[in-house]
Amino acid sequence: MATQIITLLTDFGTEDYFVGAMKGVILTRSPNSVLVDITHAIAPQDVRAAAFTLSAAYPYFPDGSIHLAIVDPGVGSGRRAVLVEAAAHLFVGPDNGLFSLVLDEVPKARIRHLTNAAYFLPNPSATFHGRDVFAPVAAALAEGVPPEDLGPTIQDPVRFERMRSEPMADGTLTGNILHIDHFGNCVTSLPWSRLLPLSGARPFSLWVREFKIQKLARSYREGAAEPGTPFLIWGSAGFLEISVQSTSAAQRLKIRVGDPVRLVWESGR
Amino acid sequence: MATQIITLLTDFGTEDYFVGAMKGVILTRSPNSVLVDITHAIAPQDVRAAAFTLSAAYPYFPDGSIHLAIVDPGVGSGRRAVLVEAAAHLFVGPDNGLFSLVLDEVPKARIRHLTNAAYFLPNPSATFHGRDVFAPVAAALAEGVPPEDLGPTIQDPVRFERMRSEPMADGTLTGNILHIDHFGNCVTSLPWSRLLPLSGARPFSLWVREFKIQKLARSYREGAAEPGTPFLIWGSAGFLEISVQSTSAAQRLKIRVGDPVRLVWESGR
Amino acid sequence: MATQIITLLTDFGTEDYFVGAMKGVILTRSPNSVLVDITHAIAPQDVRAAAFTLSAAYPYFPDGSIHLAIVDPGVGSGRRAVLVEAAAHLFVGPDNGLFSLVLDEVPKARIRHLTNAAYFLPNPSATFHGRDVFAPVAAALAEGVPPEDLGPTIQDPVRFERMRSEPMADGTLTGNILHIDHFGNCVTSLPWSRLLPLSGARPFSLWVREFKIQKLARSYREGAAEPGTPFLIWGSAGFLEISVQSTSAAQRLKIRVGDPVRLVWESGR
Repeated sequence: MATQIITLLTDFGTEDYFVGAMKGVILTRSPNSVLVDITHAIAPQDVRAAAFTLSAAYPYFPDGSIHLAIVDPGVGSGRRAVLVEAAAHLFVGPDNGLFSLVLDEVPKARIRHLTNAAYFLPNPSATFHGRDVFAPVAAALAEGVPPEDLGPTIQDPVRFERMRSEPMADGTLTGNILHIDHFGNCVTSLPWSRLLPLSGARPFSLWVREFKIQKLARSYREGAAEPGTPFLIWGSAGFLEISVQSTSAAQRLKIRVGDPVRLVWESGR
Repeated sequence: MATQIITLLTDFGTEDYFVGAMKGVILTRSPNSVLVDITHAIAPQDVRAAAFTLSAAYPYFPDGSIHLAIVDPGVGSGRRAVLVEAAAHLFVGPDNGLFSLVLDEVPKARIRHLTNAAYFLPNPSATFHGRDVFAPVAAALAEGVPPEDLGPTIQDPVRFERMRSEPMADGTLTGNILHIDHFGNCVTSLPWSRLLPLSGARPFSLWVREFKIQKLARSYREGAAEPGTPFLIWGSAGFLEISVQSTSAAQRLKIRVGDPVRLVWESGR
Repeated sequence: MATQIITLLTDFGTEDYFVGAMKGVILTRSPNSVLVDITHAIAPQDVRAAAFTLSAAYPYFPDGSIHLAIVDPGVGSGRRAVLVEAAAHLFVGPDNGLFSLVLDEVPKARIRHLTNAAYFLPNPSATFHGRDVFAPVAAALAEGVPPEDLGPTIQDPVRFERMRSEPMADGTLTGNILHIDHFGNCVTSLPWSRLLPLSGARPFSLWVREFKIQKLARSYREGAAEPGTPFLIWGSAGFLEISVQSTSAAQRLKIRVGDPVRLVWESGR
């Protein structure tokens, strides 16, 4: 009788029948599932943005949650459908790099190729696997079907390079802009977990485009002390972010996803 | 103790209190209902778009589901409020053509005029029947109130013409653009169920505006073989669609909802 | 075993991980909660719009509901986090005026400063109290933690002036535009509850910008009798609204939130 959480993350938008049809399929096959939308507003076909958003949201859900993540430009072609079993969470979606950050964080994750069509809708379309393949597989997992019934394990999932920071020979750290949020804050790929042990009390600057940003604020309000001046802040997703009070840092500094950033340690002072 | 699914489809947007107030009314009167949003992003007062989206989503929900569909330019005027009992699903909303496609598919549907104000909120407003009339009626149905208590049957619901394809004397098939989705794919009113038996192995072309489209792809990826070239595909809602890989077919070809299309059989090859 | 409704109202948008992470925190700590989105599309940092939308939606939820409302430009600064106990509903969010209209309506509301960090996530961030402070507090309330465990009562919550109408010495009534809805209807701060007893059969006009609006319609359809002409209507949120049939009154009359309005009684006629 325990309910099972199934989250949904797609680029389907919310103006069509797509999300509704997926939910109908799930609730038909697993009536007690609790459906939670993470977002359906990933930019069309932006698999990297989906990978970031998924990795920032899933750790807050209870163990055993099932995460449907579907940004799927290759639907209907030969790309594989996969199940990722990682850190007590289950992930279902296309094998196109979407689970790269999950796999970075959980090296021992098990990945399965979803080959057992008995758990798909009959005669799945070539254009909407969210409804016809992934939703019924998530429902099957919610109903207790063991992962090994769904397909064999694989060792070579598609993974993105370059979604993390890299230390350089001169001590600087390079990365890029992972995400721009609703408020225009720019999330870099430089994680606290790497920076905090290195930084201690050492001051640093971040270069992005032609801008050098030195101020590190503890809150948006503290950052607002000098209105209009960009500042750095430890963001809630675990990465260093670039922010400007009361306006969009992305628009102000003309920053786009993928732009490189470079962190430089300040000497002395 | 069985839970009851109530779906919601409106043009209310999600930035106001409208949807929240409707859900509050439902959960006050039917606490165990499971609410599922189909969409609230139907273009304001676009009853035809709502009819299409509803017909594409509802078949995926379990039997017994209740579908609240409210795009209601005539609220507060004399237009009737109705309940449609069709194919083991229940539909609640204004009598303005919104249920045309459901009625096309289920000729034996029973339609009732919702006249029993005992199931409305007290003193319903003239501007928000979603909250004051339709939501409490859906909650009543979810709680087991029999349809016959809600009002008498009627035989003359408002229905749209022209939402289906028409065979012409010369063998061509005419229709129109029913819907443009989030990705810019253009859904025609030509259904598989009619075309597949006719086509068999016969090739055909589709004319829309001044464009003739011949390529029929089995997947978006296959359609992408010639980048930028429009192609046809059997869409997931059951209709022939016009698509362009990685961009919006609607923007590329300047197609709008309602534009006529014409399917012509190719002789020989 | 009774389920507990928790509503969410924020300016977080729906394209990020923010709302998903909050829901994950709540469902981890209170698995049987029923989550209902009121909106996440409040304009960034527009606390007044949030106050209006919250006050229009919450009365339709059952007694005992918990309302999470987070529009929080001061996150991470010294602003207090509060719980408002009002009219059998519980409200959780920042102390920045967001609960002004609730407090206007329920003068005996009790307000608590949320100081007991035992109910927050460990090491709350300075940038995302929605996830780290408010969501776990809402979950604690849903699980039956008594309000007095969460912090001491306070008497001086932040409240907005000027969100209501004011009678003037000459008998006119002044107010302002509280909200512009999805359809472009302009909601004034003039409530029925004040106007109806005063008006009776007396005709009145409303001035907004350089426009004088006299027509009072009972429904949008009635207002449409003279296409393109603005009219007044008793809106579903309990306030006088300005509307134009089939188009946005806000765009047509160039009305913006905060614009003053003045109601003048017509003599004779």
